[in-house]
Amino acid sequence: MPSTTLTPVGETRVGPGPAEYERHFRGALERLHGERRYRVFADIERISGRFPTAKWRRPDGTVTEITVWCSNDYLGMGQHPEVVGAMTETATRCGVGAGGTRNIAGNTSPLVDLERELADLHGKEAGLVFTSGYVSNQAGISTIAKLIPDCLILSDAFNHNSMIEGVRHSGCDKIIFRHNDLGHLEELLRAAGDRPKLIVFESVYSMDGDVAPIGAICDLAARYGAMTYLDEVHAVGLYGERGAGIAERDGVMHRVDVIEGTLAKGFGCVGGYITASAAICDAVRSFAPGFIFTTALPPAVAAAARASVRYLKRSGAERAAHQRQAAATKAALTAAGLPVLATETHIVPVMVGDAELCKAAADHLLECHGIYIQPINYPTVPRGTERLRITPSPFHGVAHIETLTAALVETWETLDLPRAGTVFVEAAE
Amino acid sequence: MPSTTLTPVGETRVGPGPAEYERHFRGALERLHGERRYRVFADIERISGRFPTAKWRRPDGTVTEITVWCSNDYLGMGQHPEVVGAMTETATRCGVGAGGTRNIAGNTSPLVDLERELADLHGKEAGLVFTSGYVSNQAGISTIAKLIPDCLILSDAFNHNSMIEGVRHSGCDKIIFRHNDLGHLEELLRAAGDRPKLIVFESVYSMDGDVAPIGAICDLAARYGAMTYLDEVHAVGLYGERGAGIAERDGVMHRVDVIEGTLAKGFGCVGGYITASAAICDAVRSFAPGFIFTTALPPAVAAAARASVRYLKRSGAERAAHQRQAAATKAALTAAGLPVLATETHIVPVMVGDAELCKAAADHLLECHGIYIQPINYPTVPRGTERLRITPSPFHGVAHIETLTAALVETWETLDLPRAGTVFVEAAE
Ligand SMILES: Cc1ncc(COP(=O)(O)O)c(C=O)c1O
Ligand SMILES: Cc1ncc(COP(=O)(O)O)c(C=O)c1O
Repeated sequence: MPSTTLTPVGETRVGPGPAEYERHFRGALERLHGERRYRVFADIERISGRFPTAKWRRPDGTVTEITVWCSNDYLGMGQHPEVVGAMTETATRCGVGAGGTRNIAGNTSPLVDLERELADLHGKEAGLVFTSGYVSNQAGISTIAKLIPDCLILSDAFNHNSMIEGVRHSGCDKIIFRHNDLGHLEELLRAAGDRPKLIVFESVYSMDGDVAPIGAICDLAARYGAMTYLDEVHAVGLYGERGAGIAERDGVMHRVDVIEGTLAKGFGCVGGYITASAAICDAVRSFAPGFIFTTALPPAVAAAARASVRYLKRSGAERAAHQRQAAATKAALTAAGLPVLATETHIVPVMVGDAELCKAAADHLLECHGIYIQPINYPTVPRGTERLRITPSPFHGVAHIETLTAALVETWETLDLPRAGTVFVEAAE
Repeated sequence: MPSTTLTPVGETRVGPGPAEYERHFRGALERLHGERRYRVFADIERISGRFPTAKWRRPDGTVTEITVWCSNDYLGMGQHPEVVGAMTETATRCGVGAGGTRNIAGNTSPLVDLERELADLHGKEAGLVFTSGYVSNQAGISTIAKLIPDCLILSDAFNHNSMIEGVRHSGCDKIIFRHNDLGHLEELLRAAGDRPKLIVFESVYSMDGDVAPIGAICDLAARYGAMTYLDEVHAVGLYGERGAGIAERDGVMHRVDVIEGTLAKGFGCVGGYITASAAICDAVRSFAPGFIFTTALPPAVAAAARASVRYLKRSGAERAAHQRQAAATKAALTAAGLPVLATETHIVPVMVGDAELCKAAADHLLECHGIYIQPINYPTVPRGTERLRITPSPFHGVAHIETLTAALVETWETLDLPRAGTVFVEAAE
């Protein structure tokens, strides 16, 4: 349709002009620069079969090989031959996209099979796959809570942004309990009386690497008549006999009502999911706009994810090697006097406590040592607790750990960064 | 961590028990069944190289070959050798997943290259890729509007759920203008005075197949000092000299501030994007939680999407064949006396006007004719306007169209469905 003009051209404009709009966006970016929060993404090309080695494309276009120490492809499953093979085989057989939403032509067999696989993994009646873990939390939490009349959501203070968005989106009353604080949670549950309640929490908290007392939270839920929604995003594939996560490891999987996970971290692919009773999954499938009104995951992605889940159900070798290398990394860095945050998991935070220094340390490691560790600054962590978040994998060997340790020690000396024993305090907002 | 018990086991429970929670989900599903809105997804396996033929896996597990007439892989690009080749080659070279968020290890070179390709496609300074078109609207609209102080959003009444969510999420004032009604839009713009405004609309509306007067809306935006945000999800790849959409076809692409699109329909892959000024894209990149806190699209998906975009920039043959086959389908169905909604685009709605009959027609077509057309019922379309939404592609040839026509005629006779000339009225809610 050709453009038609309703109003005479050349008349004076009412309201702001393009330059004024542009100024708002420029201004917001300048504020970020001013607060040293402007993020620059490193341009990385992964090399299948050589993880954690990758290519770094500098802003000037030149390319160098580097070692990645901050990937959430925790086990390197993204390069596993069975996983890559499932993707290429399915893409060749079925093509690339799903071609539609789940309802309209996009409900492909590999996706249906993946959902069965995930339900089995977590010992639940059903599974439901979303385009990401983010969307699974946002759509899952909001839809579940909305379907429970007068639901009160109890949410851990350290929950991920996707969970916070889900809680917010539900429109339900919410109350925050202090991170992993059972006493506080019980107090709040008791105060809520007999109204319906949903406790929303994570198993492994990804920035500090600490773990929720899932069993004890389930005890409280049983006592006070609450439902439980658990995000195992940083644990699936990594913990438990068959890689179902911390709830499996702790023997309490059957006590959690909804277990949410991602296909993008331990499983090395992309996508997210919930597993729960058949009625819960069917209700979310039927009512969640973020599930309904979007194109389904490609069959090739679903097949790759399923191959990864199946492989990790039967093989515990990657999980064992992962824990071993994480422990070795922590030990080496601690012995070198670096301020490693003590964690019980595979996540190794090395504290810096300042946004600019944190970025400077990361830049120095990349430029001078070919080691890539993205600085973690506010708002991902509280100000004053900026850090390098190191994620060892089964493919980070002894030589990698030695090189990393030496590079960090040199960087800490060059930039005069805080040593072990420093106390890092969250800045008041 | 082993489960610890804080409260004595066996005490009476306060609040609802598991069965009571379950009842809410079951009840919600029963209400859907009661309203004949419960959706059953057909389990489809795509066959690369044989589109629109696919395998249908029946609930009992038996498999039949069918013809898909409702895919949004409008051009069949999901099976294009260059697109499939880019996915398999990149998966083999880089592995499957991105391994992290865009900020943390997930900013892979194929994704960076894809964003440049999309910016070039739409003639904008920058592009920004999201995990889906849904998320691009939700995160894009909300973040852009939030960054404009006191912004009023003017939103077309027929906008897609993802745009509505973006508008809602922004927390800004919003006002709905009647679908494609320039007079109403102008009235509202005038009434808003000189405050900042964002007009949010689509180019091709996917259920009715009608097209927005983009140029005239841009005229109004210029006159009343508004920004424009255009969803070209059902047009990218399909219209314009290089496949940039209706705004390109109409010669007004440079006048639209933000153009949003999907990689999942005309381009046959998965993912979504916005293109706009460098400052707008950088601001959304920096502030949108739905962009920041989620794993990036896999490099293999980005490479496949880029191959599709590049191919369709230089080849117009698919677009021409698409329009030709859509016109031939409309002509054949109209000649057969079926109630085809007149559209100016590639979308061919055949009206039924009743949810149960619409589902019955679709079931009959699938069971008896091996033709898959998902019924489109409320809430995707208003009650009273239920329809079969048919999407011809360049791969639906003369024989396919003849078979389809005969099957629809038989179905219409068997079920005594409304013929051409029937008036379909939206039921009041
Ligand atoms: C705890 C938690 N939940 C959910 C997500 C989102 O998962 P995805 O990357 O699959 O969107 C993340 C991180 O990305 C996370 O850290
Ligand atoms: C107009 C419109 N915008 C956005 C979307 C979402 O795009 P995607 O499927 O890539 O999430 C859709 C449909 O899926 C749509 O119809």
